[in-house]
Amino acid sequence: MVFARKHLLKIESYEAGRPISEIKCQLRLKEVIKLASNENPLGPSPKAIEAVRKALSSINRYPDSSGYYLRKKIAKVLSLEPSNIILGNGSDELIDIIIRAFVEDDENIITADLAFLEYKIVSFINNRNLITAPLKYFKFDLAAIKKKINPKTKLIFIANPNNPTGTYVTKYELEEFFRGLPENILVVLDEAYDAFIDVEDFPNSLNYIKKKNVLVLKTLSKSFGLAGLRIGYCLGLPELISSLEKVRQPFNVNSLAQEAAIAALDDKKFLRKTRSLILEGKKYLCQNLWELGIPYVSSVANFILIDVGRDGVSFFKEMLKFGVIVRNMRQYGLKNFIRVTIGTKKENIRFIKVLKKILKGNTPRL
Amino acid sequence: MVFARKHLLKIESYEAGRPISEIKCQLRLKEVIKLASNENPLGPSPKAIEAVRKALSSINRYPDSSGYYLRKKIAKVLSLEPSNIILGNGSDELIDIIIRAFVEDDENIITADLAFLEYKIVSFINNRNLITAPLKYFKFDLAAIKKKINPKTKLIFIANPNNPTGTYVTKYELEEFFRGLPENILVVLDEAYDAFIDVEDFPNSLNYIKKKNVLVLKTLSKSFGLAGLRIGYCLGLPELISSLEKVRQPFNVNSLAQEAAIAALDDKKFLRKTRSLILEGKKYLCQNLWELGIPYVSSVANFILIDVGRDGVSFFKEMLKFGVIVRNMRQYGLKNFIRVTIGTKKENIRFIKVLKKILKGNTPRL
Repeated sequence: MVFARKHLLKIESYEAGRPISEIKCQLRLKEVIKLASNENPLGPSPKAIEAVRKALSSINRYPDSSGYYLRKKIAKVLSLEPSNIILGNGSDELIDIIIRAFVEDDENIITADLAFLEYKIVSFINNRNLITAPLKYFKFDLAAIKKKINPKTKLIFIANPNNPTGTYVTKYELEEFFRGLPENILVVLDEAYDAFIDVEDFPNSLNYIKKKNVLVLKTLSKSFGLAGLRIGYCLGLPELISSLEKVRQPFNVNSLAQEAAIAALDDKKFLRKTRSLILEGKKYLCQNLWELGIPYVSSVANFILIDVGRDGVSFFKEMLKFGVIVRNMRQYGLKNFIRVTIGTKKENIRFIKVLKKILKGNTPRL
Repeated sequence: MVFARKHLLKIESYEAGRPISEIKCQLRLKEVIKLASNENPLGPSPKAIEAVRKALSSINRYPDSSGYYLRKKIAKVLSLEPSNIILGNGSDELIDIIIRAFVEDDENIITADLAFLEYKIVSFINNRNLITAPLKYFKFDLAAIKKKINPKTKLIFIANPNNPTGTYVTKYELEEFFRGLPENILVVLDEAYDAFIDVEDFPNSLNYIKKKNVLVLKTLSKSFGLAGLRIGYCLGLPELISSLEKVRQPFNVNSLAQEAAIAALDDKKFLRKTRSLILEGKKYLCQNLWELGIPYVSSVANFILIDVGRDGVSFFKEMLKFGVIVRNMRQYGLKNFIRVTIGTKKENIRFIKVLKKILKGNTPRL
């Protein structure tokens, strides 16, 4: 028998969920709405779709390994150089690449105990020690994170805004955090949800990538509706980016993702539409939650973490019976919570309707 | 300053090539043909294109993490179970996943010294010791590989057919190899080019995945013209596959690749067309090389390794001036060789024409 590596024996094998179409079939549901994965409810950027359509006949060719045109495009949009940019098969892959490029076997990584799960998963896969600091009022507590630093700390992940809480750290908090931070520790600002920010005191991460120890992660998954295509990027000084390039596989980003992203970055109309849909939808949902007396965490992202006051997994299952898929927070260890993605107006109304029915105890037996 | 990991300091940063359109522009070439990357010259499978087109409007959704329908489809086609299959962002990613799941820090990997470069790259990224055995007459020498085994050997890569040589190991050679091979050593049969096989004594790898220490790698890049979309898969016993699943990232395979692959696997017409084009083209090219007295390695794949009798890099550059892109073999350490991918009839004729011109010393100055 061939044995897997020792550190992998500690976990159960991943058990994949079934696709929505299968669930729909099994539960005999007519219409299902998915508010579980923080996806763009408007669909993909039409400009991206158009670009993909044009590129279809060439998918027999390998992708451009260097991402030449896309990196040039991002550089132009952000007033950077292509050497400040590396592309990933979603920002998930870049999280992995960052650890593989910078964190030695005996070094550790710090993040919050209730942060994007991928940091935990990827630290584990890489057999690296992940140290976590508690949140404070559902927010990243940068002072608590700083206290966790020890001589073996190499990397700190700050999800800003954070998933699954939707909270953010302000520019003042971040300034304070960098004051006196050892320069040999790499700080990753993960801004997967930056498209939905509507607060004044959110830090401008482009100011920070001038530092020798800061990387910024971005994705087009949510903002431009390209989650299915897998495209994220990372920004930083060329010295840092070139270290990441050593670990990147030559054809990690597929051709259609590259074409879609180049076109999407010009689709300002779609981005505006997305933003206003999310901001309005969030207002509607929060108003209704408040009226129902259901506590939730104030969010600057495109989702809301809700305290349903009872077991979140069974609550999730009840919603599913009505054809509404939300995310239960079991994996995050939040027992009484669900996370709902802001959808279209119609979807939000349906979510509130179903929520009310369940609160009244009107769940159907299936 | 934040330092990259020590083992990465040993190499130069990867310098990405520019896309063809840029080269075309710079060299002022009207028409360029690319015979450099073993791509399908017919384009992508039309059924795959159609499926991608239909799926475009849903790319705002994350991919199906489990690859439910595609694994089901592959299982059906090969008479296996979905639990025998894991999907990758190209088989490149699966090579990485295999090493990460099975090879401990102090264990080593064996392959041939002139094999698919990815084994070397990925061993390096993972900081694993790669031991290589010489080829024999441009063929994987399984006896030589066996001799290299030591108590710390965990993994052996056999590219069959091999890239860049196009040679293969027979079922008899493979049978002999497995006889007495320690069962705690994992053997990977990498069959990226299996679609073009036309010899009787090629091993049927499906017979070997019943073994507890064998994995088989397949890709749809070449056979169905899907290189740009990134889709490969790995076959093996469920115990092995579930260890790989622990290392796989949740959304590694994009949605369009999954849809394209499901449709492509039904496109037998396209596969037949591809096969006969490659086999006829190979015959034409070999015949002409033979007439010109140019030695080449007999190939069962969709490319030919050619001994041009002088510096391969400058030969490659000369061909480029005529608008024909082949692969120089510098990275492989083969000084006097080029590798040419079998193209369409028109492309093959042009390649031979250009070859003749260069041999006569008729290269234009640009």
